Amino acid sequence: MAEAKNVFYAQSGGVTAVINASACAVIETARRHPDKTANVYAGRNGIIGALTEDLIDTGQESPAAIAALRHTPSGAFGSCRYKLKGLQENRAEYERLIAVFKAHNIGYFFYNGGGDSADTCHKVSQLSAQWGFPIQTIHIPKTIDNDLPVTDNCPGFGSVAKYIAISVREASYDVAAMAKTSTKVFIIEVMGRHAGWIAAAGGLAADRDNDIPVVILFPEIPFDQERFLAKVRECVARYDYCSVVVSEGARWPDGRFLAEQGTTDAFGHAQLGGAAPLVANLIKQGLGYKYHWAVADYLQRAARHIASKTDVEQAYALGKAAVELALAGESAIMPIIVRTSDNPYRWEIGQADLADVANAEKFMPGEFISDDGFGITPACRTYLEPLIRGEDYPPYRDGMPEYVRLLNAPVAKKIPAGFELRR
Amino acid sequence: MAEAKNVFYAQSGGVTAVINASACAVIETARRHPDKTANVYAGRNGIIGALTEDLIDTGQESPAAIAALRHTPSGAFGSCRYKLKGLQENRAEYERLIAVFKAHNIGYFFYNGGGDSADTCHKVSQLSAQWGFPIQTIHIPKTIDNDLPVTDNCPGFGSVAKYIAISVREASYDVAAMAKTSTKVFIIEVMGRHAGWIAAAGGLAADRDNDIPVVILFPEIPFDQERFLAKVRECVARYDYCSVVVSEGARWPDGRFLAEQGTTDAFGHAQLGGAAPLVANLIKQGLGYKYHWAVADYLQRAARHIASKTDVEQAYALGKAAVELALAGESAIMPIIVRTSDNPYRWEIGQADLADVANAEKFMPGEFISDDGFGITPACRTYLEPLIRGEDYPPYRDGMPEYVRLLNAPVAKKIPAGFELRR
Repeated sequence: MAEAKNVFYAQSGGVTAVINASACAVIETARRHPDKTANVYAGRNGIIGALTEDLIDTGQESPAAIAALRHTPSGAFGSCRYKLKGLQENRAEYERLIAVFKAHNIGYFFYNGGGDSADTCHKVSQLSAQWGFPIQTIHIPKTIDNDLPVTDNCPGFGSVAKYIAISVREASYDVAAMAKTSTKVFIIEVMGRHAGWIAAAGGLAADRDNDIPVVILFPEIPFDQERFLAKVRECVARYDYCSVVVSEGARWPDGRFLAEQGTTDAFGHAQLGGAAPLVANLIKQGLGYKYHWAVADYLQRAARHIASKTDVEQAYALGKAAVELALAGESAIMPIIVRTSDNPYRWEIGQADLADVANAEKFMPGEFISDDGFGITPACRTYLEPLIRGEDYPPYRDGMPEYVRLLNAPVAKKIPAGFELRR
Repeated sequence: MAEAKNVFYAQSGGVTAVINASACAVIETARRHPDKTANVYAGRNGIIGALTEDLIDTGQESPAAIAALRHTPSGAFGSCRYKLKGLQENRAEYERLIAVFKAHNIGYFFYNGGGDSADTCHKVSQLSAQWGFPIQTIHIPKTIDNDLPVTDNCPGFGSVAKYIAISVREASYDVAAMAKTSTKVFIIEVMGRHAGWIAAAGGLAADRDNDIPVVILFPEIPFDQERFLAKVRECVARYDYCSVVVSEGARWPDGRFLAEQGTTDAFGHAQLGGAAPLVANLIKQGLGYKYHWAVADYLQRAARHIASKTDVEQAYALGKAAVELALAGESAIMPIIVRTSDNPYRWEIGQADLADVANAEKFMPGEFISDDGFGITPACRTYLEPLIRGEDYPPYRDGMPEYVRLLNAPVAKKIPAGFELRR
């Protein structure tokens, strides 16, 4: 029987409410197979931890601490924004990775992230194929942007979608009550980069029992100022108020982001770089309505307090599947979510080749956006609803959620330092 | 035995996550005393509903719908920002109120709001004393700003405080994970007008198990840019990241709000009117750190999904006490929260004369702000902690909270229209 190898696990890119649930699953699953996996070493700050030999010994964490990762947001081991170059462009990085992996007897490489991370993972897998270095590489998907191809959805997205849907519903109730003498339009800016998935979730604020006017500005639809203002005016005429969800990736017809417009706000100041205040200003100038605006920013992706149960379960299942697939001999793949039924919602774990995942983005399909470009269709609702289903509350003490801070004890270094990260 | 009179109830000013819990209590308590209170008529959009004879017949709402108000945010009957002038300044408004109250046999006036509403309530009480019109007036406190005098705290505040404390903790976990290669400072702008109570709640993000650097900018402390930047630099040097909570009411030493500065953002644009982007810009220019900023706006006061259980219970208790005090013959008063013990936390209902409440603001006392002006003291923590204690989750269906929309059926008008509201 082969000697047990150590596991390398790291988190990459923007963190989420549930990426630690995947970490929890990797460590718990590896611990159940001590014959094949010795210890799990986490990279401190993603791949940087591997390059700098800054490894965390998760073996020193108690089972309770690891279990608590399931309900703790953010990245427990630190994340990074650092993309490996191609094998030929920066040979030194790959040589360094091999040196560190060899020194610490690492046989499994699990990288937990989005599109850029899948690319990094794919390149590491080439170490094995092209350089003959034995390491199994599995990418564990994570991105609130929900823009990875092949998988039905991405862990992290369901919880952001739930947070945005609830927040838009709550704020809409608020503005509806204020509209008679005060605020008539509420605008919220949401994340999602070039894809409108998170913005679409704002549409779930309305349903058959909540006839709420929600106008959505998707990155996929070039912004038409005149039609937008007409739509808002129409909503206010009918409902006396209106809620607007604007994606950070919404663009003018010439391709510039909304926030790049350089127009002035209601006080005559040039705009600052947020899409929400820009849209607020257009409404004030064009329609004269009193407005309020919010920018949820990190709050939306860190909101573990109202995470989607479906999302938590899938994040855990993908981490678990990653280890099991590796133990079954797989490499250069990513476990994915496969939807087998909408109603009742059913899903299972599948797998994709990393070559098919890296550096591709999945946008909102046309049939998910209403004809006027400002809303979601029933098909989109059918897709989104199961992803926000269920609550998975963290434990509380004295009114505050009890999130875990790990010891994050370093693994003793075994090779000389001297490796310089690219800036 | 006296004839049962009708009850007038209305909501005023900015709405909250728990003002409907007070409405629930008023209606449920009145329904238990049909011998003394006939029906509860709600003013549509606060006092405006009384002035325009736009009354809502709550008798048409089912017990289940009224019970659901307890877990529904915002103002179910609509709110307003409309302050009555003095009796001598606008006699027509008071004559109109008397005409409407007489026409609908209203003997009880419950106004649910903050400082301005207490003033309106006080003036209506003078109708009774000075003009001999028999009506009992009770003010039910509500304000997220927590700035009413006499009462230990104000319904609505505890839930905002909980939301901000949790949000700052969650976002701090997030930025801590990103700090190595990306964002080092997270800034959140919070409400509270001229008082720093909500900003102070951001300090609860840190505790003995969460050593989080939180720098708070209070309205009570003139902004000292140099000392602030030194504080942020110190935090980043020690923790590698920093969270900043800035009150919308924070001011420059000359008294202007931070947002009035007219400085430019990181892109060279003049600032827009938000304190968070202004502070982000100062940090970028002064220290060079990458930042993220959020403006929670309505999200914080509408966040019924994570309301404080203490807050919900107190909002309900105050609405119930208001009716019971009126039935006991009281008038021109406001039921209040009296804290009788910090640990264990105990409170009871007391009462205050409206004359002592109207038009007064309560600010953060000096002993609640740390010596450097950027944090909260143990005494402040002792005050705040019980107010955010306990969770009181609303029911969910398909991943979304089930908030109630009432029928809000109008009461038939009995007197001629023709009254014009002041603009």
